[in-house]
Amino acid sequence: MRSLNLIILGTAGAGKSALVATFGKWIEQNTDRKVAYINLDPGCDFLPFDPDFDVRDYFTIAQIMRDENLGPNGAMVRASELLEQKAEEFSRRINEIEADVRLIDTPGQMEVFLFHGGPEFAKLMRDVTISLFLVDAQIAARAAGFVFTRLLGLSIGLRLEVPAIAILNKVDLAHDKLAEIDRMSADLELLKERVVEESSGVVVDLTLGLSKVLPELLPAARLVKVSAKTGEGMQDLFDIVHEVFCACGDLT
Amino acid sequence: MRSLNLIILGTAGAGKSALVATFGKWIEQNTDRKVAYINLDPGCDFLPFDPDFDVRDYFTIAQIMRDENLGPNGAMVRASELLEQKAEEFSRRINEIEADVRLIDTPGQMEVFLFHGGPEFAKLMRDVTISLFLVDAQIAARAAGFVFTRLLGLSIGLRLEVPAIAILNKVDLAHDKLAEIDRMSADLELLKERVVEESSGVVVDLTLGLSKVLPELLPAARLVKVSAKTGEGMQDLFDIVHEVFCACGDLT
Repeated sequence: MRSLNLIILGTAGAGKSALVATFGKWIEQNTDRKVAYINLDPGCDFLPFDPDFDVRDYFTIAQIMRDENLGPNGAMVRASELLEQKAEEFSRRINEIEADVRLIDTPGQMEVFLFHGGPEFAKLMRDVTISLFLVDAQIAARAAGFVFTRLLGLSIGLRLEVPAIAILNKVDLAHDKLAEIDRMSADLELLKERVVEESSGVVVDLTLGLSKVLPELLPAARLVKVSAKTGEGMQDLFDIVHEVFCACGDLT
Repeated sequence: MRSLNLIILGTAGAGKSALVATFGKWIEQNTDRKVAYINLDPGCDFLPFDPDFDVRDYFTIAQIMRDENLGPNGAMVRASELLEQKAEEFSRRINEIEADVRLIDTPGQMEVFLFHGGPEFAKLMRDVTISLFLVDAQIAARAAGFVFTRLLGLSIGLRLEVPAIAILNKVDLAHDKLAEIDRMSADLELLKERVVEESSGVVVDLTLGLSKVLPELLPAARLVKVSAKTGEGMQDLFDIVHEVFCACGDLT
């Protein structure tokens, strides 16, 4: 059977590493799939999983700051360049790791990966590659935030050239808002109403324009809701990933 | 006359600080406008301008790393939280600085600002606020990169709720590609052809869908081309900013 590479994306603090740990453990306990854990984040101190591949064996942000006498910004840019240069070597080594599912944690700052190394890396991975884009449920609960995150998800898919599935994370902190998010996903008219209620000035036209065209671009898929912290939603996450995996497997 | 707040955005290494310095100097030398320089980036070592307001007087990434014993990722998240908490105080102090144009440099990682503090800060600024989104000309030269950057520009405007103008930076390194970028901006059919030539698999449909709807959302404006390094394009930049400023001034 073909392997699945799952690239976990999200802005700093979105809970990427926690999701890798929680989802990996769930897959191991509930299926017969073998999981490999990959860390591509050179800036993390602590990982909640035991990596089969760790970019920190090659370089870390802290070490670049010391060795090259750079500040955090400069070190981050330098690490991006290294990630880009090493995309081929890293993808080769990761492809060699035997597993059914490779869970791939990415740099703390999403844009580092999207602008440097990420697209090359995704292209070089063998078998089927899918990305998960973690969205904080609190941000998606406002209509403008909802449209914004759908748009970011689209941008990610476009940039990495792999399917991008948006996932609501941290739902344990936003249970009271989930019904509203579901209503906005299902009912375009309601989404438009909310946009008008919330926004003002230049942004209303833009948001309305976007909410009009988004349905043409995104199927009205249910948004999977998870909490990497409490572990809820892992079965749903597995199901949707499996669904997209099968669809891709047929296509590629 | 009302003042203009110009928020300079772009991914790490896009040349935000260099543009603030170059554009500020150009305005001072070529117009009678008074310029104020604002630094909101707690992670920079060196600034090519002399700031009238500097977030580093409050906190820096390096200091958070030391004081709170955090790695670069943790310190970045902590700095984001501080930026969000202090949005009101910072915007009040910056509003007090007398100037016709306030050039506002933002954190090295764009997502820090977009997800934390940026929207609140933009809302609290007085007078007219516009954002400039710096795009590396090399990335926009590919059709998928072009669509991606337009989409990111849209997302930024949506998130900050202010007009976002996309600017091609580093054109001194990409003179041979500018004509092609202009052709793709002006001619939707050409853009679609290029997308099909370049892309493969799942991304073709997505990019084609986007290139179909983008014209509904974005006027086919000319993309301003600048180099913060060589100083070319500053008059064009000033003209487009002035144009948007006047349009906003009428509306708000």
